Amino acid sequence: MRIETLCTGDELLTGLTSDTNSRFFQALLLERCGLTVRRSTVVGDVREDLIEALDTLAARCDVVLVSGGLGPTTDDLTIECAAEAAGVTLLEDPVVMAHIRARFEQRGIALTGNNRRQARVPEGSEAVLNIEGSAPLVIQRRGACTLFFVPGVPREYRHLVESFVIPKLEAMTASSRSTVTRLLVLKTMGVPESHLDAKVQPLLAKHPAVTFGYRTHAPENHLKLLARGASVDVVEQVLAAAAHDARALLGEVVFGAGDDTLAKVVGRALLEKRFTLAIAESCTGGLISAACTEVAGASDWFIGGAATYAVSAKTTWAKVPQALVAAHGVVSAPVAEAMAVGVREVLGTTCGLSITGYAGPSGGDAANPVGTVFIGVATPAGAAVEKHRFGGDRERVRLFAAATALDVLRRRLAGS
Amino acid sequence: MRIETLCTGDELLTGLTSDTNSRFFQALLLERCGLTVRRSTVVGDVREDLIEALDTLAARCDVVLVSGGLGPTTDDLTIECAAEAAGVTLLEDPVVMAHIRARFEQRGIALTGNNRRQARVPEGSEAVLNIEGSAPLVIQRRGACTLFFVPGVPREYRHLVESFVIPKLEAMTASSRSTVTRLLVLKTMGVPESHLDAKVQPLLAKHPAVTFGYRTHAPENHLKLLARGASVDVVEQVLAAAAHDARALLGEVVFGAGDDTLAKVVGRALLEKRFTLAIAESCTGGLISAACTEVAGASDWFIGGAATYAVSAKTTWAKVPQALVAAHGVVSAPVAEAMAVGVREVLGTTCGLSITGYAGPSGGDAANPVGTVFIGVATPAGAAVEKHRFGGDRERVRLFAAATALDVLRRRLAGS
Repeated sequence: MRIETLCTGDELLTGLTSDTNSRFFQALLLERCGLTVRRSTVVGDVREDLIEALDTLAARCDVVLVSGGLGPTTDDLTIECAAEAAGVTLLEDPVVMAHIRARFEQRGIALTGNNRRQARVPEGSEAVLNIEGSAPLVIQRRGACTLFFVPGVPREYRHLVESFVIPKLEAMTASSRSTVTRLLVLKTMGVPESHLDAKVQPLLAKHPAVTFGYRTHAPENHLKLLARGASVDVVEQVLAAAAHDARALLGEVVFGAGDDTLAKVVGRALLEKRFTLAIAESCTGGLISAACTEVAGASDWFIGGAATYAVSAKTTWAKVPQALVAAHGVVSAPVAEAMAVGVREVLGTTCGLSITGYAGPSGGDAANPVGTVFIGVATPAGAAVEKHRFGGDRERVRLFAAATALDVLRRRLAGS
Repeated sequence: MRIETLCTGDELLTGLTSDTNSRFFQALLLERCGLTVRRSTVVGDVREDLIEALDTLAARCDVVLVSGGLGPTTDDLTIECAAEAAGVTLLEDPVVMAHIRARFEQRGIALTGNNRRQARVPEGSEAVLNIEGSAPLVIQRRGACTLFFVPGVPREYRHLVESFVIPKLEAMTASSRSTVTRLLVLKTMGVPESHLDAKVQPLLAKHPAVTFGYRTHAPENHLKLLARGASVDVVEQVLAAAAHDARALLGEVVFGAGDDTLAKVVGRALLEKRFTLAIAESCTGGLISAACTEVAGASDWFIGGAATYAVSAKTTWAKVPQALVAAHGVVSAPVAEAMAVGVREVLGTTCGLSITGYAGPSGGDAANPVGTVFIGVATPAGAAVEKHRFGGDRERVRLFAAATALDVLRRRLAGS
């Protein structure tokens, strides 16, 4: 089965943005259907280019995933071009129109004439409602080729690809597919990708049915285990055995699998112990709290987090003694410990987590240059501080610091 | 001049990585040569696909930038395919070979047979040494088309594109280049893309030298103004006039331009007035503080932000009276106002910003369903509360709520 993707949008050709949607589709396609995309093409919002690409791809592919250009504005040309290329007219789909009208009513926004554009589909094609947006998923058949049209807005793209396109492709390939493919991802913190690769080498001979791969999702590194086999049972057994050995080999650097996040794992560990958490963060300025509260149900274990940016916020919200700051400086182990202990006491939680450091671009000194952070943890077992140093710019230091703070708490809760 | 890019690499088609190199080239091409890439194609490490793509692109383009597949291993096929497609042989370039040998000696690494592969270039083409790596930049002419071959390793790609490819293209286009291109992006909050499009329509006739485009960067919508003209001065005047009219037409929904973010704009407004800010956020749980502290130098205006998730955190950190919560419920206008007023008083800042709401998936009631948020602002001019409602899942509600809170403060500071 030959599958290609076609993305449209001037912004993908003028340096404004990169196509990151395709990667999502490609990974799911490999994992769920055992297939890879043969070629991917990006064209601008140019009528002749779109039509030429649609014709060329429809002629040589079994499946084409087209994304972008489904918005309501006049530079959104994809559906018009799909009709023109196929030599059919555009028809307003009453179900899609009702969906769009309901969305606008719900939001109390007036419907403008150009919103009707999003309800038009090429004659003979199928429209699937999009609960994340106005433009539907459009499925068009041209000869032996099936074309799927999805919006380029990432959340709409992901929803429609995952809920409709991939299941359709699974169904289309089910009869011809003799093997089942499954992917299992183990997530690690604190180990470089090259070390992960070297460490895992002994497993390759032991698990020949598993393909080992790596992916950096900074600051995490992920180990991907891909297995193919005759049935779901066989493949899942093969994967479970390989994952078991990989976990044994790698130890505590593995923090989770699948859609685990550091915050989810920390939340589960806290819930199991019936613990609660308070945070005082300086250089990360809210990132750790935001990561925790991203988890649905976080209110069961997350009580509050303070972005104590100024010294006055540290003394007010985490009861850090002013004298301690004066004696050791605001970026220091004693202040980090006082923040963790203080915030735990102020909010009356079981655990306190803190961070203070220099995210840059300015700040820091010879002993503690930009990138240095102190992470404090206070639990019923006592308080501790770790010093870390991260390279890169402000954004990277903050990203690594926030994730590392959660990882320090995770390892502490695991008793290591 | 028609320019296209061709990237090769299996990893770009299996979900392992996205092509982020092209964006670098595209932005420089627009900025320095006033040109845009017409189409971009990604193929895997498949001989027939590479040759077919090279032939197709060479036939229709003036310039093709090819990246990837220049490494030493057997799955690096690009240069072989370039020779085969052009019907010429591969020759070892002695200067490149000496460069590779020197690199390996300098590092004390033994040269292996396959490293010689990187010194081979198609007969009749030009090789430019690459100080960042082994593979040279190869420039091949086929008929009216010039093909540039660069390695896909980002550091090498960027170096060769910036130092050689772009200057060559500047020289190639200097005589024919009669026009300069510039892009200006205006960023808006609180107006749907379709309304933006409709509102801007009258400007199209008034500014015929400007192309208007739209981009959704949820929850923001961006208006893109692209102008071409005889000189930088002319183009910048044309853009400034169009931007002036667009701002006048759209009013306060335009919050910034270029690389402005809501937090940067709010920070500038606070600094101008010598104001400081404290935040108490519930459902967004740290997102607003994280956005503020992403701005370098935020410590000049951001004092602290509390993710007051539990009621106890609201009463402790923002001095919200327990009785008020009992009387009105935690998601209510009085509590939002008390949070903004309270956090401002607790940290002694000029302004207080607060949010309380239901991000979902659970919570809410008939009057205030999931997606409802109350945003409180307290400034020297007094306190105010806005009620908003956002659709979508937890992640979307939090994203929209955090941005809207900053936007409410922005408008308040602007005196509207």
